[in-house]
Amino acid sequence: MKAIVALGMTMFLTAETMAQESPEMSAEAAATAESLMQTALESDLAYDIVESLTTEVGPRLAGSEAEARARDWGAALGEELGFDRVTVEGFTMPYWERGELSIAMTAPYEMPLAGTALGGSGTGEIAAEIVYFRTVDDIMEAEDGSLEGRIAFIDGDAMVASQTGAGYGPANQRRRIGWQHAERAGAEALVVRSVGSDSHRFPHTGMMSAMDGEWAEIPVIAVSNPDADHLRRLHGNGETIGLTVNSTAGWHGEVTSGNVVMDLIGSESPEEIVLIGGHLDSWDLGTGAIDDGAGVAITTAAAKLIADLPERPRRTIRVVMFGAEEVGLLGAFAYADEHADELANHVLATESDFGARTIWQLSSNVSEAATPVVDDIGRLIAPLGIIRGGSDVPGGGPDIIPMAQRGVPTVRLEQNGSDYFDLHHTPDDTLDKINPDELAQNVAAYAALVYLAADTDVDFRETPDDTASQ
Amino acid sequence: MKAIVALGMTMFLTAETMAQESPEMSAEAAATAESLMQTALESDLAYDIVESLTTEVGPRLAGSEAEARARDWGAALGEELGFDRVTVEGFTMPYWERGELSIAMTAPYEMPLAGTALGGSGTGEIAAEIVYFRTVDDIMEAEDGSLEGRIAFIDGDAMVASQTGAGYGPANQRRRIGWQHAERAGAEALVVRSVGSDSHRFPHTGMMSAMDGEWAEIPVIAVSNPDADHLRRLHGNGETIGLTVNSTAGWHGEVTSGNVVMDLIGSESPEEIVLIGGHLDSWDLGTGAIDDGAGVAITTAAAKLIADLPERPRRTIRVVMFGAEEVGLLGAFAYADEHADELANHVLATESDFGARTIWQLSSNVSEAATPVVDDIGRLIAPLGIIRGGSDVPGGGPDIIPMAQRGVPTVRLEQNGSDYFDLHHTPDDTLDKINPDELAQNVAAYAALVYLAADTDVDFRETPDDTASQ
Repeated sequence: MKAIVALGMTMFLTAETMAQESPEMSAEAAATAESLMQTALESDLAYDIVESLTTEVGPRLAGSEAEARARDWGAALGEELGFDRVTVEGFTMPYWERGELSIAMTAPYEMPLAGTALGGSGTGEIAAEIVYFRTVDDIMEAEDGSLEGRIAFIDGDAMVASQTGAGYGPANQRRRIGWQHAERAGAEALVVRSVGSDSHRFPHTGMMSAMDGEWAEIPVIAVSNPDADHLRRLHGNGETIGLTVNSTAGWHGEVTSGNVVMDLIGSESPEEIVLIGGHLDSWDLGTGAIDDGAGVAITTAAAKLIADLPERPRRTIRVVMFGAEEVGLLGAFAYADEHADELANHVLATESDFGARTIWQLSSNVSEAATPVVDDIGRLIAPLGIIRGGSDVPGGGPDIIPMAQRGVPTVRLEQNGSDYFDLHHTPDDTLDKINPDELAQNVAAYAALVYLAADTDVDFRETPDDTASQ
Repeated sequence: MKAIVALGMTMFLTAETMAQESPEMSAEAAATAESLMQTALESDLAYDIVESLTTEVGPRLAGSEAEARARDWGAALGEELGFDRVTVEGFTMPYWERGELSIAMTAPYEMPLAGTALGGSGTGEIAAEIVYFRTVDDIMEAEDGSLEGRIAFIDGDAMVASQTGAGYGPANQRRRIGWQHAERAGAEALVVRSVGSDSHRFPHTGMMSAMDGEWAEIPVIAVSNPDADHLRRLHGNGETIGLTVNSTAGWHGEVTSGNVVMDLIGSESPEEIVLIGGHLDSWDLGTGAIDDGAGVAITTAAAKLIADLPERPRRTIRVVMFGAEEVGLLGAFAYADEHADELANHVLATESDFGARTIWQLSSNVSEAATPVVDDIGRLIAPLGIIRGGSDVPGGGPDIIPMAQRGVPTVRLEQNGSDYFDLHHTPDDTLDKINPDELAQNVAAYAALVYLAADTDVDFRETPDDTASQ
């Protein structure tokens, strides 16, 4: 199957896109990028990388011993693949662990629930009736003290799935801030419907939002969509619902995390950096295949294909395996601090952190002068099925945010997220969910994009005033 | 959506199948059956029943207090729906409970596994290295004593999914008899790849096979397909794999289970019985929506639609909600014993116990003289998308086996099982997996079939010699 797909793609590339010479892109550069794409489509490297990470390291919670093993794995991989410079940059962080959880319905009858503690939640053992809130907005209306001796349940709805994943933000409010209102109103614990688009009995974990630097003292538990549906139906029947919750989640002091920084040093302007990457940490429930082993693998494999060219491109290509993304972009902020003096030379940055499905759109947020270059790149990768999206789209990926806030130009190769939030932050985020052909399409797009961005001398930075502040 | 489907179906029925008079089926009977089908397609009754059972009773392990509540629920439903006679027939059974399980990998690193105890397995706490067996055939070769101090792992492959579910039997060998060889060879515990066609981190439970009336003394644990894949890859990498297993599963004496028997008494030959049904018990991990709340709901709803006709059909229609199916067809054997004297008057029997997807085929195992009647019924229900399958297919459903062994003729309305073994015996067997329109198609087929079988005076019983022994 892979061979057939690759062959079909090769023919299409040859017929439609040869010799894309333009003022910004030489025919030679275009030909090299097309060759990289074809090589990528026939390569198993990214799949091999994500298989290695998920199998040999496994789950790798931010700050854990497992995440440290992942850094060792990443640094060894960088050396093995022939990067010119591999550095592990450590930082310290507060450490939260899930501990053990049991959650079960005790009335109207006994039934274990599929639940998991949310990141940042506290320890506690409670047996109490629930107070039902249809949405997170409803619990905001709860009066102080009105939930004493009770467990609050915020229902909401399953997240709407889509290519862009736009339903995540709105649905995520109950996970982020629900606890602040539950705790204010005196609840002993909070249970929320998972933020996920699936209908499987997997709870979705994820970080809550701190309030004034403080985290929840009460247990905060996400239950799967089918479990939340079950509670909703019982509530609708007028039943009194009793739960027991026993969670040992909590904070455990300061630990070390770190970023793995791997460079292909530019041949002409080594101080200029095109930065790509993914994050090395995962939630502990699965093995972090789509979040974000895939991103680590895609970007590392793309750089490796460029490393195999006879010559390095003009600029430095940097792959960063960020640490501690899931718990608040801690590696990203550490990177931006560590490299503060160098950020002015970061000419372009992007992260792959939205799964392993095919890329369908290229968006950008670069200078007006450089936008035609991105347009050219867009035309070159169009045969991969990628359309050209907006040219003033802020972002570049979660770990790019701290850099983008300091003016680093960004692009984004947007993956199809239709089933991303079926798997996101669940035990089901495992290697079997990755399609090797789709992963290879990602590598092809990254390899072409990164090569061309590193080969040009165009300045991506003169960001228009109206987007610089975003 | 439902209204549209029902309307389209109605038009089709009217155009294609009106007045199917034949020597065996009067035009009046055919018209009544077609009317029942149309009513069924527009009815929510079956969905309401399975929603009620899964929500109000929840999981209902054979022999448990929850299964007793399910019997109360069933009997109350039978009375409410207007059955002429509702009886609960108790029987005793040995009681096995899952207890608590923890299973985790400890080497080459720590990682919890998604596992569950298999039915009939024993108690134990073990920390040991695994011995890997590629298939169940391989462990049969293990020498006595060769696994002492070890945990055996039988890998195998994910079950092949299909419309018929034919992959279940072969894959199920490792669940059924794997323990017999592991225990003989001295293993401290056995871990097997779940028998399931999905790639989710849900373990599939299910009963093992006793050997000479004895059950496993060691813990026997099924792990999900992704977990088994993970162990396979680590083994393939040459890693030594350590596990801890702590299971409190075991047997707990004799308890009471029972069958709920609900009759619509025949107007002319009340002693002649057309028997349909499903099983009331479920595994404890999910809420037993597709296995077998759906079957209970489909057959009860079909009978209720017939009960709403102006007159009862000639023969008695009996709906049986069997108890304790999952643990060895205990309710089915109890029914066949309890009704031994009456079985000669059971003119036809069939069970719905293969999920909630659409029915695609009608097969039968009745007398040659009666086969044209089943052919006629097949033509009448063909507009539902149902083809006529074999006329010498033994079976009729798991709980029909003891009756069929004693000569009761059977038919089967075969459901599409393509995703049945994705969900079967997992925590994911919940209401959200049922499509109300597909459930209604089932009710339509059952209502027509059962009405016509109860309305005719044809003898289904003169089974040819060559199938009587099957």
